This record gives sequence, C-alpha cells and structure tokens, in this order.
Amino acid sequence: MTQTPGIAHLPIHKIQDAGILTTMDELAIEEPLEIRLQYGPATDRREQSVSITMRTPGNDTELATGFLYTEGIITDITAIDLVSTFTSNSILISLKTTIPLDLGRLQRHFYTTSSCGVCGKSSLEALRTVCPAPQPAADIPLPHDMIYALPEKLRRQQDIFGSTGGLHAAALFDAQGNFLSLQEDIGRHNALDKLIGSSLQNDNLPLNHHILLLSGRACFELIQKAAMAGIQIVAAVGAPSSLAVQLAQEYNITLIGFLRDQRFNIYAGSHRVRI
Amino acid sequence: MTQTPGIAHLPIHKIQDAGILTTMDELAIEEPLEIRLQYGPATDRREQSVSITMRTPGNDTELATGFLYTEGIITDITAIDLVSTFTSNSILISLKTTIPLDLGRLQRHFYTTSSCGVCGKSSLEALRTVCPAPQPAADIPLPHDMIYALPEKLRRQQDIFGSTGGLHAAALFDAQGNFLSLQEDIGRHNALDKLIGSSLQNDNLPLNHHILLLSGRACFELIQKAAMAGIQIVAAVGAPSSLAVQLAQEYNITLIGFLRDQRFNIYAGSHRVRI
Repeated sequence: MTQTPGIAHLPIHKIQDAGILTTMDELAIEEPLEIRLQYGPATDRREQSVSITMRTPGNDTELATGFLYTEGIITDITAIDLVSTFTSNSILISLKTTIPLDLGRLQRHFYTTSSCGVCGKSSLEALRTVCPAPQPAADIPLPHDMIYALPEKLRRQQDIFGSTGGLHAAALFDAQGNFLSLQEDIGRHNALDKLIGSSLQNDNLPLNHHILLLSGRACFELIQKAAMAGIQIVAAVGAPSSLAVQLAQEYNITLIGFLRDQRFNIYAGSHRVRI
Repeated sequence: MTQTPGIAHLPIHKIQDAGILTTMDELAIEEPLEIRLQYGPATDRREQSVSITMRTPGNDTELATGFLYTEGIITDITAIDLVSTFTSNSILISLKTTIPLDLGRLQRHFYTTSSCGVCGKSSLEALRTVCPAPQPAADIPLPHDMIYALPEKLRRQQDIFGSTGGLHAAALFDAQGNFLSLQEDIGRHNALDKLIGSSLQNDNLPLNHHILLLSGRACFELIQKAAMAGIQIVAAVGAPSSLAVQLAQEYNITLIGFLRDQRFNIYAGSHRVRI
C-alpha cells in the first residue's frame, strides 16, 4: 500500500443499502506538536513552550516557523539559528543569541492573538498592537473568471500531490492566478502557518502580490495570519465569519467567500475585482 | 429584518454569470469569550482565566459550564455558586467556597487536555489521567436505518430553530433516534461544550444512553469531550481523524463517520450496529 504522508490506513465497515463491506480506509493523521523556543544571550539561554497544536505530521519546520512569524515572535528567517526535533511530537526553534526577545512581549502576543478583545480592548484594537501597519494597497486587478478558476486549480494540485482532499488546504497563487504552492493540515490555521512558514524560508514575504485560497471557511484567525504575511487577497471556498470580514475591511484585504460553481461573494475590498 | 442570535447581516456583492448583485447577506458571528474562574475558601478567594475561545455568542453559560466539565475542572453543577457576565466577552464562574480546587491540578488538566502527548506521554496515556474510567458499555442496539435518519432530523431542527446551517452543530438523540437537543457554534468544540453544559444544567449526565450527532468532522478533542460526558455513540457527517478513532476504540465508543445519503462508515464499536 502506498504511504501518503499525513494519512493512516485502517480497516473499517462500510454500511450502504443495508449491506456491510469491510475494507481499508484512509484517515487524516492528527497528532500533537509542541513548539518550544530557545532564546536569549549565550550567557543566559532560556527555553519555553509557546504552542501546542493538534496537527497532521509533515512540514513541521514550516509550521513552527510560520507560527512564530504570524504570531509576531520573529520577523525574519535569519533570526533562527537551529531547528531540532527530538520526538515526533516536539520541535525546538533556537533563536540566534543576538536576537532580543522580550518575554513580556511574547506573553502579550499570546494574549492579543489568542484573546482578541479581552482586557477591555476590542478584538481589532488588540490586533493592531501585533500586526504591522497595513501594506500600501497593491491595486491588483482580479478578473472574475480568473477567480472562478482557482478552486479547480487547487483540486488538480491536490491530485498531483496525492492529497486526499480530506484535509484543510491553503494554496498560494500569483496575481495572474497561476498556482504557486499548497499546504494541507487537519487544522486550517496549521495549513496556513505551513504555507507562510514555507514562504518565509524561501524569502518570499510579504505576499502582497499573491492570492491566498482557503479550502474551507475563513475565520478571524486566518485573516489575521494572512494580514501578518502581507496578503491582500483571500478567497475561501466556504463562508467567512463576521470578525473575519471586519478585519479584512480594516486591513484593506479583498475577501471572497463561497467561491464555487462559477460564483462567489465579495465581503470586503471589492474595488480590486473586475467583471 | 428578523434577528437570529449568532447571525450578523451585512451588504455584500454576489458575482454570478459575470453579473453583480449587491444584497444583504447573513454571517456567523465570531467573538472571543474569556472564561474566568473564581475559587477558594471565603478567606482566600482567587480568580484566574482558564480559557479564551472564539465563539458565536449565545448560550455562553452553557458553553462555560460545559467547558469546565469536559476539562475535568468541575464534576457537578452544584459546584457552581454564581455565573456573572460583566461584558459580552467575559464570563465569570464562581465556585462554592466549599469546593476544593487544586491549582496544580488545573494546570495539569490544561496541559493534558491541550497537549496530549507532550512530556513523553502518549496522547491516550495523558488523557487517561483526566477522563473518568470508561462507563460500563451500554449494549444499545443501533438499527442501520435509524442511523440513516439522523442527519435529516438534525436539518429539520435547524429549520425550526432558524439556524443557518452555516455553523457547526452538535445534536443529542435518545437511543431510539428521537431528537433531544441542538447547539450551534462557529467552533465545533464550542457547540459540543454548549450541548454538554446544557445537559449538565439539566442534570442529565452521564449521556450513556444517547447518540451524539456532529455536523462536521470528528477530531480528537470532540471524542475526548464526548467521553467525559459518558457518551458511547458518536456519529459524524464528516470524517474522523486517526486519533479520534484510537480514542473511540479505547473508550468503547461507537464511532460512525461520513453519515450521509443513506450510508455511513463504522470506525469503532461496530458491535452495537444492527443491519
């Protein structure tokens, strides 16, 4: 049996038309990953756990570096000295000894990005303290038929990569709608962190002349991560949430939802779409 | 315009057949909720934030109490003295002064339930330290056509409650497949916490003669919460993850996936299903 990364095989019973078929089935693998950070000057090295996420194994380095970037902990790949994995469930990112890291800042990042709105601040106010200022708006014209074509291009790439389509996907296209890269995970935020981490490693940030396609819904956290990577065009096959729309408006991001069957809705930044 | 709780309305552009229609659209509301816990004897009251979650407003008390129960922090609704909400983004649960709460235990719970597998323990080992022992297996016979009928019953209830169907739903049925209750949220774990919290408030736990239906996928965290509530039968419209199946096998839970269009797969506990 061919082994696809991130996929487990197990025997199941299929019930259909009152019949039972016992067969092998494919399942998305879900395992925890702890991201640990080592930091500080050579004379005072410290280590701290910064995240534990349930993810599909594969591209763990991209996931960890993307997470550190979208949470505002690192701003550049050169901040990283070494990536070590001791077990399949833990990854250690060692920052260079010259990188200053303010623990209080780390704590604040944690609170602002995962709380968004606690301590009396509104979600968007809290986010502003983490996110870079909105990039100057790239006036990328988006013909409607180029947008129509994106989901089919994603599906074709999933076939090529042997993906099951059962995982959440995040894909990057250039401004002309040409496919660039794809990441999948059982958690949608992880798929996006892997995609951004991969771009970070290839020195391709900010992604301000690119289109991000999400295979599912667009919630606040995904738009927040997209904004951190400078992405200005986000298209989702599923629905956006109220807070995702607010944030997209705030950051001048074109947000497209329900992109399927030759139709879509524009929730923010409609000025870039050409009919 | 009728106001449905958890739903926001905003103007959008619909693009179809190269035409634009500007119209009002419904969006699932996503807002943060901080769950704070007040505990300790009258002479030494303390307060601590135990969770921040992005949720759809509505049934916040059920969400908070369900969360405290499925995380193993409370075992009974009588542990709670008072529920206070000061802002729409924060809820405070005050435990009775007589309820002992070991902060270290709270910390351990946090780690075991959100980390699952860190510190050298396997996910399932870590879980065992939190979860009650598996309930004696109720030998509930599940005719296949009763199972076939569940998703349609869920959809009918969503119509009755004016739900959009755009949110994740968790629904409870009795062992004969009769509908009992429904909760929806933008986060699938929140929908289940609301459902279990509501059952806790109505003194209906454990739910060991019930069927849980999930509108989407079944990941580890959902099976973990189901196990905490004593649920032995979980059916999901979507796919389960590898770890969800492992956990269901361990806890003698019947786990059904891809339940749609008069068919389903059995991933664990097939002995209860009658063809």
